[in-house]
Amino acid sequence: MTTPRIPGRRFLHSPGPTPLPDAVLHAMSVQPMDLGDPRVDANIDACESGLKRLLHTDASELFLYASNGHGVWEAVIDNLAAPGQALLVPGTGHFSESWAVQAEALGRRVVRTPWREGWPIDAAAVEQALRDDRSHDIQAVLAVHTDTASGVTSDIAALRRAIDDARHPALLVADVVASLAAAPFAMDALGVDVALGASQKGLMCPPGVGFIAVNGKALAVAQRCPAPRFYWDWERRRSDLSYRKFCGTAPQNLLFGLEAALSLIFSEGLEAVWARHARLAGAVQAAVAGWREGGALDFFARDAASRSVSVTTIAVGPGIDVDALRGVARERFQVAIAGGLGPLTGRAFRIGHLGDSNPAVILGALAGVEAALRVLGVPVGGGGVQRAVQFLAAAD
Amino acid sequence: MTTPRIPGRRFLHSPGPTPLPDAVLHAMSVQPMDLGDPRVDANIDACESGLKRLLHTDASELFLYASNGHGVWEAVIDNLAAPGQALLVPGTGHFSESWAVQAEALGRRVVRTPWREGWPIDAAAVEQALRDDRSHDIQAVLAVHTDTASGVTSDIAALRRAIDDARHPALLVADVVASLAAAPFAMDALGVDVALGASQKGLMCPPGVGFIAVNGKALAVAQRCPAPRFYWDWERRRSDLSYRKFCGTAPQNLLFGLEAALSLIFSEGLEAVWARHARLAGAVQAAVAGWREGGALDFFARDAASRSVSVTTIAVGPGIDVDALRGVARERFQVAIAGGLGPLTGRAFRIGHLGDSNPAVILGALAGVEAALRVLGVPVGGGGVQRAVQFLAAAD
Amino acid sequence: MTTPRIPGRRFLHSPGPTPLPDAVLHAMSVQPMDLGDPRVDANIDACESGLKRLLHTDASELFLYASNGHGVWEAVIDNLAAPGQALLVPGTGHFSESWAVQAEALGRRVVRTPWREGWPIDAAAVEQALRDDRSHDIQAVLAVHTDTASGVTSDIAALRRAIDDARHPALLVADVVASLAAAPFAMDALGVDVALGASQKGLMCPPGVGFIAVNGKALAVAQRCPAPRFYWDWERRRSDLSYRKFCGTAPQNLLFGLEAALSLIFSEGLEAVWARHARLAGAVQAAVAGWREGGALDFFARDAASRSVSVTTIAVGPGIDVDALRGVARERFQVAIAGGLGPLTGRAFRIGHLGDSNPAVILGALAGVEAALRVLGVPVGGGGVQRAVQFLAAAD
Amino acid sequence: MTTPRIPGRRFLHSPGPTPLPDAVLHAMSVQPMDLGDPRVDANIDACESGLKRLLHTDASELFLYASNGHGVWEAVIDNLAAPGQALLVPGTGHFSESWAVQAEALGRRVVRTPWREGWPIDAAAVEQALRDDRSHDIQAVLAVHTDTASGVTSDIAALRRAIDDARHPALLVADVVASLAAAPFAMDALGVDVALGASQKGLMCPPGVGFIAVNGKALAVAQRCPAPRFYWDWERRRSDLSYRKFCGTAPQNLLFGLEAALSLIFSEGLEAVWARHARLAGAVQAAVAGWREGGALDFFARDAASRSVSVTTIAVGPGIDVDALRGVARERFQVAIAGGLGPLTGRAFRIGHLGDSNPAVILGALAGVEAALRVLGVPVGGGGVQRAVQFLAAAD
Repeated sequence: MTTPRIPGRRFLHSPGPTPLPDAVLHAMSVQPMDLGDPRVDANIDACESGLKRLLHTDASELFLYASNGHGVWEAVIDNLAAPGQALLVPGTGHFSESWAVQAEALGRRVVRTPWREGWPIDAAAVEQALRDDRSHDIQAVLAVHTDTASGVTSDIAALRRAIDDARHPALLVADVVASLAAAPFAMDALGVDVALGASQKGLMCPPGVGFIAVNGKALAVAQRCPAPRFYWDWERRRSDLSYRKFCGTAPQNLLFGLEAALSLIFSEGLEAVWARHARLAGAVQAAVAGWREGGALDFFARDAASRSVSVTTIAVGPGIDVDALRGVARERFQVAIAGGLGPLTGRAFRIGHLGDSNPAVILGALAGVEAALRVLGVPVGGGGVQRAVQFLAAAD
Repeated sequence: MTTPRIPGRRFLHSPGPTPLPDAVLHAMSVQPMDLGDPRVDANIDACESGLKRLLHTDASELFLYASNGHGVWEAVIDNLAAPGQALLVPGTGHFSESWAVQAEALGRRVVRTPWREGWPIDAAAVEQALRDDRSHDIQAVLAVHTDTASGVTSDIAALRRAIDDARHPALLVADVVASLAAAPFAMDALGVDVALGASQKGLMCPPGVGFIAVNGKALAVAQRCPAPRFYWDWERRRSDLSYRKFCGTAPQNLLFGLEAALSLIFSEGLEAVWARHARLAGAVQAAVAGWREGGALDFFARDAASRSVSVTTIAVGPGIDVDALRGVARERFQVAIAGGLGPLTGRAFRIGHLGDSNPAVILGALAGVEAALRVLGVPVGGGGVQRAVQFLAAAD
Repeated sequence: MTTPRIPGRRFLHSPGPTPLPDAVLHAMSVQPMDLGDPRVDANIDACESGLKRLLHTDASELFLYASNGHGVWEAVIDNLAAPGQALLVPGTGHFSESWAVQAEALGRRVVRTPWREGWPIDAAAVEQALRDDRSHDIQAVLAVHTDTASGVTSDIAALRRAIDDARHPALLVADVVASLAAAPFAMDALGVDVALGASQKGLMCPPGVGFIAVNGKALAVAQRCPAPRFYWDWERRRSDLSYRKFCGTAPQNLLFGLEAALSLIFSEGLEAVWARHARLAGAVQAAVAGWREGGALDFFARDAASRSVSVTTIAVGPGIDVDALRGVARERFQVAIAGGLGPLTGRAFRIGHLGDSNPAVILGALAGVEAALRVLGVPVGGGGVQRAVQFLAAAD
Repeated sequence: MTTPRIPGRRFLHSPGPTPLPDAVLHAMSVQPMDLGDPRVDANIDACESGLKRLLHTDASELFLYASNGHGVWEAVIDNLAAPGQALLVPGTGHFSESWAVQAEALGRRVVRTPWREGWPIDAAAVEQALRDDRSHDIQAVLAVHTDTASGVTSDIAALRRAIDDARHPALLVADVVASLAAAPFAMDALGVDVALGASQKGLMCPPGVGFIAVNGKALAVAQRCPAPRFYWDWERRRSDLSYRKFCGTAPQNLLFGLEAALSLIFSEGLEAVWARHARLAGAVQAAVAGWREGGALDFFARDAASRSVSVTTIAVGPGIDVDALRGVARERFQVAIAGGLGPLTGRAFRIGHLGDSNPAVILGALAGVEAALRVLGVPVGGGGVQRAVQFLAAAD
């Protein structure tokens, strides 16, 4: 691309895509391979087993897709519910609603539980909706673990209990796109039947690969599901041949990167990765807590305990132009932040802090945002980045 | 990947994926960007306009997908025919049959014309099948331009004439996955309504991006098509927002590579690219012509004029172990070649010669294959690579 | 290297080597070339002409070396003074003294002017030393423009006037290793006869290339200089053959990077590059001005006007362990800063802010240093990084 | 660089620089590091110990330089002989003569033994010259192991015997620039006192790093040597501080590449690397043996046993334009070969076959050269590349 020169590295604080480590870039920077080359299968094996390890599942098969996250949403829908059957989508905001709309467009009936702005999934409402489904038409509960728009993480264990308490056979499906490799998640222990994710967030890879782990119970449901399907079909992908696993050519270079990224995560240690995310999220929250003393900004997530370690959504008062803020932060201070999505458009901005990050990066991003807020005349209270510095200096 | 060290570069002579130029690798080796970064839209624009230029179409809209080639096959089916409606798939061998099977799995009716081994599409049979479709139930003719398995390129203009002569309203869809940027193709002039391709062949990119150009007539058909769809849906992707264009996150780094690859093609000159492919294919054909004098091998494509400039399929006698040949060529001489697909499994091997290649590469590949043939005791006649040398020395 | 995983990018705030832009990394990531390949000469030409443009000299020849900065120091000594002849080295601190020691080791006589800690070169002392050299034994004045250890930039124009006023024939040699492409420098206009630099600072390249621009007057001196020499010899390198220009093989990949770096500088605009360095240096100085209110730290450079735009040296009180500070900043906050050199060892640390940088990077570095100071219990006054944020928000 | 597009990878068959493996490119494609970063010392340690392992020396210290091969030649001269003292340079052709000229330019006296075109060093002449040096003025015998110009490898063991038989105290210095990591070499066992090399040949790195292993006997000579020196001085570089080891900044990114390259060599296995070079050299020699039947070309090296495994020099008859041949091979067939050097200019061309290579690469190069010979009308006999194919198919 021939664009104006950007000095230094522009900071990427979307909640996805996220920065790529050098090791991922290098792993991707090799020549593709003939499908008969044994390295192709070895790479796919490493991705499958690494993702299962990351998801803490022994009980599942792992399907990889050349697609983004919306693609694997579609795969879940196509494999678990036939047109006319129902899916329950608990409200988390923009992403739950998008998934629901997709299911409806594909001819499935969707049961929603309401979204309360700033709060996680209401497990009681889920339980009630399942109890109300006397005919057990609902095939699965499609739950977004961390909604990237709201920055709220919901309690998956509570959903498991809700399903169990309702004595409903619906599968529990968790979208961990925005939480995997950032927040703790243990598929088997949580009783999650299907978990899906994508490459471009906690996995520190470019967008373009989606994946789904499916346990035996869910596979059995899929086998009985009469929905016509081909590209997304799990059964057709259960093969030792890479060409069948991917319904065509595998996205090789992205998978080379994914293998490298998994290796980085395990070499750092998954507990250490989680702790790092919690620490950096704490720094961001310290800064926001400082800024909100200025009276113009606040956390969107009302419940401190459900604030995501991946992304912080910051609600702004009506006089603040979020697009202008993003423009100043990006073009003048080289910090790219995200805007509000869906109902939050113009009402919030978001700072991503997941993936391959560290204190200096987060502090630089916070300082850049603070500078942009100052340029726009937004009162920033008694210290934002300074509080983040203090928080990190005090953290062990 | 920790694999045994491979000295030097292993030659990649699949008919896809194909070797990546340094400029493509470097374009991919940058950080992803926030969706609000203007560089994201500029990159997508460049890919869209570059692909349209490559396809020689002004009359079409261009849709890009995070998917492989089978994904865009599915998109064509989902947008053009409702379940129960019919599609005509002219026989070209493995790939036409795969597409037909996919359409049937998705609930569409498929009309096939027979495949004659070693020969291109029989346009007369297509015309007859359309004439036989009195109710105009066939929505489109799905034609594979170059069948990667057979190494045969069919005449798209003849298909256009067949449809016109049959006075049938079916759309003409061309799969140019294996031919684009290798053999001449001019979508608008040929009267092609929909053309689809993928990133990993003539486009010199990794697998993971599919694309479809759709003209106004085909868009109108799609708008009337009641098939439920979401990820693949063209209408939903007609947006200025990248997030909608890709039904979620765009596969950014692959698109950065694609922009670079298109730039390389246009800087070389499309006519020069075509001429280079024809010249290198000539060298391969010269070698095969030499080898077949040994009596053990022959061109699979019976008609010299329809031999692909992208890939040469070489039929082998019953005593030759194709897998062993590929193994020796790859492990001992560092030349990766492809095997036979579908009905040609064990009966043929394939040498890809498309994408980012040159005389030295092709000669090295041919010499490596010849060495492997010698190791296996296959008679190679009076000179294979030597004839290729002579051919290239004589070519202007 | 197999080292513990470092999450995110470690910030590099040495005053050299400095961070490498992606375009430089990519330019270096190509295959070397046969010396007969025309691209080799084109690359060398581009480096030579680009460096002359950067130095603002039309009157000079440009010599490139496979060496570091100390190598080109040696080249200057070997070409301009025979053993036994004298060179005048004005005191700037660690680097002037190192150059003087090198000249003495090579058998030259060195005249020094004294260094006053925290202050630039004393031009009056230079003039006096030249006047004292009645026999004109001094061949050249070897002046370090910015001493990387002290963070002080001296006034080259004042040196020119000193030589002229003393009516001494000595050449004026400027070491612009740490200032070029950061602070304004115009060789011809300043009356500098020889200017030397290296690749790893303002030029945003890895270490390994040194260069020297030599005007006609200095070339004539060199031609008369009887010192035996070969690798460093300018006369021998005056050739159109790359093999002679480099006294052997050119350091190709580094030169590919250098060409790319020069192109980045000119595309940003040299004035813009200087302004960016001044602005970022201002941010660092704002932070240091805040920290020193804590009473434990201060600017080493006493004269605000001569504080370098490339590096800031911060003097610390006796109770502060500079090595511990660097360790905490690097290992816990991922900010690498430099220590004190020579007489400043243990008495100062240094923050580099030259090369490929931007506000977010500098703010992150300052915040990381502030966090490390806090960890060590160093009082940091009423806001360091916060003042830098305010400075940058107010800068236009 | 903006040059015309080169499709595919241009084959590099200089005898240096040589192709870079991906792992080396990637190792170089990281950010430089502050000198205080422990990774800097770990990298230098790995380079030092790896090179000593490669040289088969426990008895030596290893010095690394930011320089090319001519630089380390100068280091050897400066450390071992004072101006006025003598060095014996046995004739091997262009490179021995260049080294001798350099020593003379630096004020040393040079004793030469005559070069017999096409033959290795005459050990008997060396012995005689040492016997003639009654006053033991000769400090060292400077022997080029493989002369890159002639493609002839000399017998180092024979030189050791010659020195011993002459009972002369001169040190034995071996330039293994063109042979290391290609042909067997065991410094300690051979009784070599000093061995020097460079990064850009068998070591598969870019040019820019030279190195010298020095045993205790040679270090003692150096300590007594009164020659003034600084950059090249061994004693000054004997330090644990990287800044002293390199007399300034280390060429970091090149050293990152060197560490990776050494790791590749040891993972392949040094015996395997030698065997690979011997096999590929055999293929080249098979092709040349075929070509010379045409009567226009011949091996320059008269003695088959001393033909280098790194480079083959091919003498051409008077009617053949070597520059035109190189131009056609490079521009039309994408194979870069070298010309004749020094007295062989216009009389020979050279095919490099060392470093990161494999059968397909070598066969492609030979085929490309054969095509270029055909274009120029040079008779190529009854099969060049074809014989190389047969040779490699028969080799185990």
